[in-house]
Amino acid sequence: MKSFFKSEWHDESEKVLTLREKDLLLGNNVYEVIRTYNRIPFAVKKHFERLKKSSSIMQIPLAFTCKELFSIIREGLQLNNSEENREFRIRIILFSGGTTDDILINFEPLPPISKDIYELGVNIGISPIIKPSGWIVSPYLKISGQSWNMRSKKIMNERYDLILLNERGNVCEGTYTNIFLIKENKIVTPDILSGVLSGITRENMISLIKSLEFELQIRPVRSYELFESSEIFLTHTSAGIVPVRKMGEKVLIEDFTDNVTRLLLDNFEGFIMSDETNWAGV
Amino acid sequence: MKSFFKSEWHDESEKVLTLREKDLLLGNNVYEVIRTYNRIPFAVKKHFERLKKSSSIMQIPLAFTCKELFSIIREGLQLNNSEENREFRIRIILFSGGTTDDILINFEPLPPISKDIYELGVNIGISPIIKPSGWIVSPYLKISGQSWNMRSKKIMNERYDLILLNERGNVCEGTYTNIFLIKENKIVTPDILSGVLSGITRENMISLIKSLEFELQIRPVRSYELFESSEIFLTHTSAGIVPVRKMGEKVLIEDFTDNVTRLLLDNFEGFIMSDETNWAGV
Amino acid sequence: MKSFFKSEWHDESEKVLTLREKDLLLGNNVYEVIRTYNRIPFAVKKHFERLKKSSSIMQIPLAFTCKELFSIIREGLQLNNSEENREFRIRIILFSGGTTDDILINFEPLPPISKDIYELGVNIGISPIIKPSGWIVSPYLKISGQSWNMRSKKIMNERYDLILLNERGNVCEGTYTNIFLIKENKIVTPDILSGVLSGITRENMISLIKSLEFELQIRPVRSYELFESSEIFLTHTSAGIVPVRKMGEKVLIEDFTDNVTRLLLDNFEGFIMSDETNWAGV
Amino acid sequence: MKSFFKSEWHDESEKVLTLREKDLLLGNNVYEVIRTYNRIPFAVKKHFERLKKSSSIMQIPLAFTCKELFSIIREGLQLNNSEENREFRIRIILFSGGTTDDILINFEPLPPISKDIYELGVNIGISPIIKPSGWIVSPYLKISGQSWNMRSKKIMNERYDLILLNERGNVCEGTYTNIFLIKENKIVTPDILSGVLSGITRENMISLIKSLEFELQIRPVRSYELFESSEIFLTHTSAGIVPVRKMGEKVLIEDFTDNVTRLLLDNFEGFIMSDETNWAGV
Repeated sequence: MKSFFKSEWHDESEKVLTLREKDLLLGNNVYEVIRTYNRIPFAVKKHFERLKKSSSIMQIPLAFTCKELFSIIREGLQLNNSEENREFRIRIILFSGGTTDDILINFEPLPPISKDIYELGVNIGISPIIKPSGWIVSPYLKISGQSWNMRSKKIMNERYDLILLNERGNVCEGTYTNIFLIKENKIVTPDILSGVLSGITRENMISLIKSLEFELQIRPVRSYELFESSEIFLTHTSAGIVPVRKMGEKVLIEDFTDNVTRLLLDNFEGFIMSDETNWAGV
Repeated sequence: MKSFFKSEWHDESEKVLTLREKDLLLGNNVYEVIRTYNRIPFAVKKHFERLKKSSSIMQIPLAFTCKELFSIIREGLQLNNSEENREFRIRIILFSGGTTDDILINFEPLPPISKDIYELGVNIGISPIIKPSGWIVSPYLKISGQSWNMRSKKIMNERYDLILLNERGNVCEGTYTNIFLIKENKIVTPDILSGVLSGITRENMISLIKSLEFELQIRPVRSYELFESSEIFLTHTSAGIVPVRKMGEKVLIEDFTDNVTRLLLDNFEGFIMSDETNWAGV
Repeated sequence: MKSFFKSEWHDESEKVLTLREKDLLLGNNVYEVIRTYNRIPFAVKKHFERLKKSSSIMQIPLAFTCKELFSIIREGLQLNNSEENREFRIRIILFSGGTTDDILINFEPLPPISKDIYELGVNIGISPIIKPSGWIVSPYLKISGQSWNMRSKKIMNERYDLILLNERGNVCEGTYTNIFLIKENKIVTPDILSGVLSGITRENMISLIKSLEFELQIRPVRSYELFESSEIFLTHTSAGIVPVRKMGEKVLIEDFTDNVTRLLLDNFEGFIMSDETNWAGV
Repeated sequence: MKSFFKSEWHDESEKVLTLREKDLLLGNNVYEVIRTYNRIPFAVKKHFERLKKSSSIMQIPLAFTCKELFSIIREGLQLNNSEENREFRIRIILFSGGTTDDILINFEPLPPISKDIYELGVNIGISPIIKPSGWIVSPYLKISGQSWNMRSKKIMNERYDLILLNERGNVCEGTYTNIFLIKENKIVTPDILSGVLSGITRENMISLIKSLEFELQIRPVRSYELFESSEIFLTHTSAGIVPVRKMGEKVLIEDFTDNVTRLLLDNFEGFIMSDETNWAGV
């Protein structure tokens, strides 16, 4: 895999950083992760807009256009494309300077998603580590090195993800996923100020839910509501929608052939593929 | 300056890192900063203990001894010592692995401290960015990439430091300093759970205050108490005690020859030099 | 003085309540206090609307009209009017039932306001007792027996009022007053969700400020901002606007002839007298 | 029933209060409720100590002794005793003055407790109204007129009680009960600072649990833990221990013959009867 750094392409094994790259080493940077579908980078414009928001909050200048970013990504895809690697996860890290000199772009193969997770669902838990709500830390900030995420990841063990609660005891999100509940035929997901990164897949899911005319509530969610739900599913870039089978000791899915999550799953890929906002700039 | 990385010494200009050093690039690491006095590293044992606590919270294994760390630091001091650079600031970053293979140690000259700050005092402000209290994020965690600190630093402008408040409106600390107030002849400093990193200089100052038999209160401090104080001073590793002249529009120091801060200033260096706990292991 | 209770008028000394009036004795009631100007009850319609909101939150039915209330008040004013008592403070307590059978209306002479408070200003302090913000307890609820108010009143001593802070360290209001600050020529007052009862005098003051085209900020106010203000004033029904001379040890008023508070004071009575919304229903 | 007020005994139907009894009417008072077992007042000393704590926080002087209180209660029991009423609930309200002139003591028959609640358990829910934690409002304060309790009672409908959560999303207590959970064979109950009135029955239960050598955790309890419990029970003065059958839609009790709650139930009355601290002063 080749990475882009300071306007050049480098091999993974190549040593390119000195120990004085302070903004990289001390976390003064923001990032985005983009995936491809059929070798085409997905929702680049949306990721670019979010990167701009993040960088503006951190006062890291961003001095390139979405088009420039697009063309670097395309170049990287051509360089890294191969028989065995056809779909990619692309991490864009922006640090101090603000021009394309100041981005690091890593490419890695999109990890294969087992069909099982869509058929059987996954196990999740609730993290004992608190995430500050959006009243304390801006929820629009996508930076690495957030201790609540790193600490939760280390106690995740065999579970697919851990759900974090904020200081008010409300549900935020997983360490890399957003969460949706089905309660009495309504679909519920925490609001941004609860401490939720507005994931691109979350936004696409919200659009899909609206287009299917389900009742949707975007609001603070008490932690006990997780146990009052008839269905729970997660969303994230790499896997789209992931149904939850078990949360702690609670089994949510007995029969999974005919419920709301299944309906959303069956419609999700078609929906995002045909939604033009995801392909702007291609 | 030479840095230690993966058991070897490297020049500053040497490229040593690939773009796949994830734990370094994604903030999965803890750190400490040690200074020297008279070329001797100060309070190494205390910094080592704090690093151990930090790494244990982050579940980053730490598999070397204080003695091993000491000997690497000593080696680095000999390598970097020169006519123009006699005192150093030493940053130790510990990442994934846990052995001395997994530390990065940077040396840089201790920035010269202007005598003026001790005579005239400095200007500070209150940050509009909230720091989560110790009820939300462990106050024993010293990691880089904390957004409240980075964002506050970027709006500091000509001020010496900005003081952060927590989500309860109580005083925490500066972005790199601890804070002490004098109120009605009592010395007051925020408690750890308010969201305070227990600075080594803060701890030394607490010991000095006790030895001088001042009344000391370690407790939650309401933000308005900053304006009820007759004196305010900051502490941090590089400069020791720094008196505050002005906070926002409030002038604290008119005459600075005969007050509590002056008394502490006059006694601080003598105290830490003679306190054996600061020189353990030398 | 005669009071109205269960559809009848009673002397103050008359025993009218059994010990089984649970809703009265156990605090299951809401209330309003109305004053007169020139023997005419002031802003009755506004108080009635607020009583309705309060009673709806407490699920105490309110089954009479503003007109009915108005006519009882008028009757009481006639009964209680005398040479020595011309202006009144009228407390309306609504309990369980919901008809005019279920109101208690007390009349007492409006306490004489010393001219001095307008010329010299008053001393206030900050209460150590926390008031829950509107995120916890509905700010639209006017009930007696709130512990933060009662406890603050008991430590008020010679001060005119104590200002309460909420659990976020933000300014709410006094125990019976609302608060306004002047900061850099802007007028600032806490927003309702900070934990502020929307006083009728506060609302009138907001209208006056707008009509005079001052810049007004209604927003969360950090406690230290009290000390960054050039002027502070309080508002409450009995006295209108009250300038603050001293808060704790801070002297706010040196010369009080030519500032924002003075301008508002000079215009307040004229404004409320001519604003028709205050006299609806007369 | 006869009540004690201002040093005299009054019939229920007797009018004894004027409308100027401000401390009673405006909620400036503290209270306790004592029950009898076998016509003997239970845990009077403990209730007296709690009344003292409450009154000291509210700065309402309390100038009589437990012995004096005891003898008034005994007198009232003799006056009110009859064939049909043998067990009583005694409410003591202390207001401004501080002597026995300033207490109101009401007697009412202890409501009959259906055996069914012990055999079948009761249904409870979670209140949508927030109770401030002990960090905001002192949990040692037993006063009437607390809006969160009154509002929750009004939406209780057919449920036995509603459980209140605090502003951190943690479990406090019911509107008149304390709560205990069984989780993995440990017994868990919220700590006082979560916003729990330290009920006398709660304290007796804690002693019983210790004497039976169960593992007990007194700590903040996340709301979702209610749904992770295998058993839940409530405690309150009138009924002792009450097992919970259903919480919302979750059925907790299928078979109730052989579990922890049953064991505690079978031992509770014997335990409190033989514990001398409950009968001090008799």
